[in-house]
Amino acid sequence: MSGNTFGEIFSVTSFGESHGPAIGCVVDGCPPGLELSVEDIQLELDRRKPGTSRHVTQRRESDTVEVLSGIFEGKTTGTPIALLIRNEDQRSKDYSKIMDVFRPGHADYVYWQKYGIRDYRGGGRSSARETAVRVAAAAIAKKWLYEKFGIKIRGYMAQLGPIVIPFRQWDMVNQNPFFAADIDCVPELEAFMDKLRKSGDSVGAKISVIAEGVPVGWGEPVYDRLDAEIAYAMMTINAVKGVEIGAGFACVMQKGTEHSDEMTPAGFLSNNAGGILGGISTGQAITANIAIKPTSSIRLERRSIDKSGQPVIVETHGRHDPCVGIRATPIAEAMLALVLMDHALRHRAQNADVVCTTPRIPGNSSY
Amino acid sequence: MSGNTFGEIFSVTSFGESHGPAIGCVVDGCPPGLELSVEDIQLELDRRKPGTSRHVTQRRESDTVEVLSGIFEGKTTGTPIALLIRNEDQRSKDYSKIMDVFRPGHADYVYWQKYGIRDYRGGGRSSARETAVRVAAAAIAKKWLYEKFGIKIRGYMAQLGPIVIPFRQWDMVNQNPFFAADIDCVPELEAFMDKLRKSGDSVGAKISVIAEGVPVGWGEPVYDRLDAEIAYAMMTINAVKGVEIGAGFACVMQKGTEHSDEMTPAGFLSNNAGGILGGISTGQAITANIAIKPTSSIRLERRSIDKSGQPVIVETHGRHDPCVGIRATPIAEAMLALVLMDHALRHRAQNADVVCTTPRIPGNSSY
Amino acid sequence: MSGNTFGEIFSVTSFGESHGPAIGCVVDGCPPGLELSVEDIQLELDRRKPGTSRHVTQRRESDTVEVLSGIFEGKTTGTPIALLIRNEDQRSKDYSKIMDVFRPGHADYVYWQKYGIRDYRGGGRSSARETAVRVAAAAIAKKWLYEKFGIKIRGYMAQLGPIVIPFRQWDMVNQNPFFAADIDCVPELEAFMDKLRKSGDSVGAKISVIAEGVPVGWGEPVYDRLDAEIAYAMMTINAVKGVEIGAGFACVMQKGTEHSDEMTPAGFLSNNAGGILGGISTGQAITANIAIKPTSSIRLERRSIDKSGQPVIVETHGRHDPCVGIRATPIAEAMLALVLMDHALRHRAQNADVVCTTPRIPGNSSY
Amino acid sequence: MSGNTFGEIFSVTSFGESHGPAIGCVVDGCPPGLELSVEDIQLELDRRKPGTSRHVTQRRESDTVEVLSGIFEGKTTGTPIALLIRNEDQRSKDYSKIMDVFRPGHADYVYWQKYGIRDYRGGGRSSARETAVRVAAAAIAKKWLYEKFGIKIRGYMAQLGPIVIPFRQWDMVNQNPFFAADIDCVPELEAFMDKLRKSGDSVGAKISVIAEGVPVGWGEPVYDRLDAEIAYAMMTINAVKGVEIGAGFACVMQKGTEHSDEMTPAGFLSNNAGGILGGISTGQAITANIAIKPTSSIRLERRSIDKSGQPVIVETHGRHDPCVGIRATPIAEAMLALVLMDHALRHRAQNADVVCTTPRIPGNSSY
Repeated sequence: MSGNTFGEIFSVTSFGESHGPAIGCVVDGCPPGLELSVEDIQLELDRRKPGTSRHVTQRRESDTVEVLSGIFEGKTTGTPIALLIRNEDQRSKDYSKIMDVFRPGHADYVYWQKYGIRDYRGGGRSSARETAVRVAAAAIAKKWLYEKFGIKIRGYMAQLGPIVIPFRQWDMVNQNPFFAADIDCVPELEAFMDKLRKSGDSVGAKISVIAEGVPVGWGEPVYDRLDAEIAYAMMTINAVKGVEIGAGFACVMQKGTEHSDEMTPAGFLSNNAGGILGGISTGQAITANIAIKPTSSIRLERRSIDKSGQPVIVETHGRHDPCVGIRATPIAEAMLALVLMDHALRHRAQNADVVCTTPRIPGNSSY
Repeated sequence: MSGNTFGEIFSVTSFGESHGPAIGCVVDGCPPGLELSVEDIQLELDRRKPGTSRHVTQRRESDTVEVLSGIFEGKTTGTPIALLIRNEDQRSKDYSKIMDVFRPGHADYVYWQKYGIRDYRGGGRSSARETAVRVAAAAIAKKWLYEKFGIKIRGYMAQLGPIVIPFRQWDMVNQNPFFAADIDCVPELEAFMDKLRKSGDSVGAKISVIAEGVPVGWGEPVYDRLDAEIAYAMMTINAVKGVEIGAGFACVMQKGTEHSDEMTPAGFLSNNAGGILGGISTGQAITANIAIKPTSSIRLERRSIDKSGQPVIVETHGRHDPCVGIRATPIAEAMLALVLMDHALRHRAQNADVVCTTPRIPGNSSY
Repeated sequence: MSGNTFGEIFSVTSFGESHGPAIGCVVDGCPPGLELSVEDIQLELDRRKPGTSRHVTQRRESDTVEVLSGIFEGKTTGTPIALLIRNEDQRSKDYSKIMDVFRPGHADYVYWQKYGIRDYRGGGRSSARETAVRVAAAAIAKKWLYEKFGIKIRGYMAQLGPIVIPFRQWDMVNQNPFFAADIDCVPELEAFMDKLRKSGDSVGAKISVIAEGVPVGWGEPVYDRLDAEIAYAMMTINAVKGVEIGAGFACVMQKGTEHSDEMTPAGFLSNNAGGILGGISTGQAITANIAIKPTSSIRLERRSIDKSGQPVIVETHGRHDPCVGIRATPIAEAMLALVLMDHALRHRAQNADVVCTTPRIPGNSSY
Repeated sequence: MSGNTFGEIFSVTSFGESHGPAIGCVVDGCPPGLELSVEDIQLELDRRKPGTSRHVTQRRESDTVEVLSGIFEGKTTGTPIALLIRNEDQRSKDYSKIMDVFRPGHADYVYWQKYGIRDYRGGGRSSARETAVRVAAAAIAKKWLYEKFGIKIRGYMAQLGPIVIPFRQWDMVNQNPFFAADIDCVPELEAFMDKLRKSGDSVGAKISVIAEGVPVGWGEPVYDRLDAEIAYAMMTINAVKGVEIGAGFACVMQKGTEHSDEMTPAGFLSNNAGGILGGISTGQAITANIAIKPTSSIRLERRSIDKSGQPVIVETHGRHDPCVGIRATPIAEAMLALVLMDHALRHRAQNADVVCTTPRIPGNSSY
């Protein structure tokens, strides 16, 4: 209720500030008996961690996770799994200049007005550093979804500022720091980022994320629709300003004959729905796009106010990602995994013994 | 948890099928002492009801609401407000043809697979008829938000298929059946719809919705962000495939210098954020856009399967909106109102006694 | 969250005042495919309804339930089941005398202070009339629990004021208006009540409720323990002031050797635990006792204050149960059914695929 | 939902096993601006910690708490407060004998059947060690309730096995290891416990807990009644089998004239209600009693079964409290504090702006 717990049955309760002693979370509701090691979680964290290329923040965090509970003899026990990541590289002094001013486009002003107090060091709780715990928690969800249903959840950067990046191959995504699915675009992306970084400015990005293998029937039909929960989940990622499912905003101009995916015994003939109809998974690939705004912490002068309401000029130094979208792919995957995991469990609560004799038809391979 | 309740403190629990005896809801958590009459609710329902022009479904429903509880001597008492709307114009026989087949783009197939049973009459629970109860419930929220804070929540159709409709004036919105904010576009819209209806096809639309007067500080900062809750709320509307807050997908190509709204003692200088930063309201106008897909029930032949998995050709008759987006404006307003109402109450639960001496700056008037 | 919804997955959202147009509820999360008729629900309502003997309130309510949604062709569909009971016999004028005063032992004063407004007619929302909807909702739960697991949930009056009523036979319970499990006690109970009623006073009672056939493993282990949820559920019944599970308060004086139920391959050797260990069902009968206070509305003079804070003498007329415990047995059964139903579903959400090869041992037949 | 989170707005999400690396919790929803130090929390933990007298378990745990987040410059920030307590004195080898058998009266058998896996070391998650985190979390609640409203929450042992301990003075409670409010009883209690310990058996106890200073109006009226939430909270404490509010089970034999607390402008004349009417606080002292069963881990031979379902004789060694009730007083206080804190916030969410001109009358001083 107070906004730091995600999910209903498979739930993640997150804590921690960017420059406090640690961040972490409690994962509750994980089914018992899942083989799980700390490496399973670390592997996903390493995909997101900062400092891995010159295009992202140079903060050095090993993001080493410690498992405090919920695993016994290599398996989950059904009790809460607590995960702890110590903060290592806080340079809180970098922030003394901004303790009395509000950075434009940042959460500084609203936190201050909402709570009357804020931990200004590195954005405190509003920092995207919090997303590390989501990635850690989602590693558990991803593993369960894959082992139980063969579900694969993968994402890639679809656009960086003006540069549209086509999808070519999944195995290219982890071969470059941009999570581009076309390795040939990388030189252009690097050149763009190098120039941007020098300018002191930042830029937006678009990420696509896809889940394959989700069975038909997940999602609640009216309010807790699978697409609504995905939209919610994606919008909880710092800097996200838009979410599309399937055809998304393109459907505004589509006709019904064009949009609605026809069905045959051999499968769906298209996937404009993005794998969800009436809020419930169809068995097709679930597809979503998200828009990520340019980082608000930039090295250029901006007009703002200070705590007494007086005008100031702000210029943010410290270590920031010039495009937060670059590290967003594993986070978007994580959020999709958390939604699916929760709905897998919610679905069987009510419908564990449903028998339906109508054959399930395969999804269309395109996305 | 089972997907038919919206909101945490100000909550709406909805029930009813398109062709059952009634639809309705229980509104819980309304503060006591609000003057409220059945007319306050009916007025909003009348804006959404079917059959008001030739461009929407010809089903005749008076959508007369009955208040069953929670109001005493013209005021809310703080106890649940139950609202009941009897269904009047069910022609269930229209649906006998589709009882054994699945309409492409519709929830038929997924309900059947999820539950092993479905009320096929008019889509049953998956029908957009359910949105009437949201509009009814939101009438209460709208009234409280306006009386308590002066908040105005209004929407308009921004695009119908290929026709972009500019925003001119709020008072034009209720003067035409499209909720267009530019009355001069209406002839073009009518011509487009007449042609579409004759063709038997359907089309998508884009709706914009705006809340003015929301104070700074509403929304929880990490998961239950105001923007995340709005995205969720909008995606729960039948047929919505995309949501944008503020600049939305346009931010992908923006630079930080362009996107981040500068602040001065006289106010924000722009509103790319759409009134939300770090998940918390800034005091600016909250702005959202939604993409609505073309109606899936169309009078043209489509390939599909039946309950035994055999191929069939489906053509949907019955009474349908050729563009569900046309009646979506009041529904989008309703969902925004429900989110804001809930967060108004959630905010004060934790922060009722916060004192912040920094002056609140005004929002930018543009949206 | 606002206190009118019971349960997490199988949830009941209740509405209505004693003298408003109607009471009712929305039951969400019911598994699909359960055969359910309005008679199944009416049968349970009739066990609780007022006016069936001279020992209870003479208010005449048929308590006829209408099913508004969620059932199609005689089966539940998995969508919300809305139940409506119109109030028929409101004599609101009876209450004009108490509109400005607070009855001692009643919720009048606290409602007034909490909300600044109250529906004083018949107690408004604080009336035990609300419990009718719990009985109606629980009829669905009872049916599912019995059909799926053979679970039987039954209760009886164990004590009326000073008269302890021994348990003899289940089939006697529905043969007398007290729900006594020993028909031979009835004359004594009747004589006691006749005398009490003439005196204008009221009296307390103790109810026992038992669920047989609950499988081992239901209940969450730390906070949402099955016993904690039962205690909560029972305490939500108007006038309940105490709850015991199994040996209850008797365990204060027990030794460990006496209290802890030994186990053998042939079963548990006793049932001091009341069928719950560590918050989780053991497979034994689940047993609970509740203490019900004497009705606060009595025909004798009592000191109180009025709305301006001045002293008054209150004497309550109108139609009241001189012992609310008499009609409490079906309500206590209902609450136990609702808890078990919800936990049946919660259990399988997380543990649907657990395999345990240790044989399940039978419970002890005593309670 | 998965049973490890307590509270709705002020919520505590708990994790950890008795013999895992650590236990801890995340406290969410704490209002910002509360002065809070680690010592405030440690002080309460020290009242509960083991090894402080010969009458309790000899396990040596310093129970040193680390605050990982949510406090900045000595004040709460409104963001989650994570608390960590490392386990120090695990002798897991003590438990190798019970890894394949189920101790009677313990949660061993039900965990095994529920999850198909269990951490048998020291009871794992079912250990009362988990209650340390509740005490830590409640220290925050206690402080806020006291600073904001002057609420005092205190408890004492009212009965140990057959020995009834009268209430004399609050300041005696912390002067003896039993939390007895009459220091003169201590020699008798010590003699009883010494004899019990030698016998290898265990015994039950009764604890009373009282909150003074709670304003009128807290608690939701129908399901989330304050008394229902207290009953739930108390039953979540390991080994609790019964809960009473106010007169509790004594009300069964009371008449209405005797039970209902009369009111005068000078205050209530008695407090049979235990400070709660219709589920809402009256302004009187809130009073509750709980029954705690004898420890199930005893050094005497008991019949049980093993994992293959074969009969065994179990005798539990390791370090256990011969009366878990002895250390239960701070835990019962903690649970009452958590309930009140949550309802303080819930109340103002809905009713922050209620104005009621009727004077509030004082409670009766007796309990």
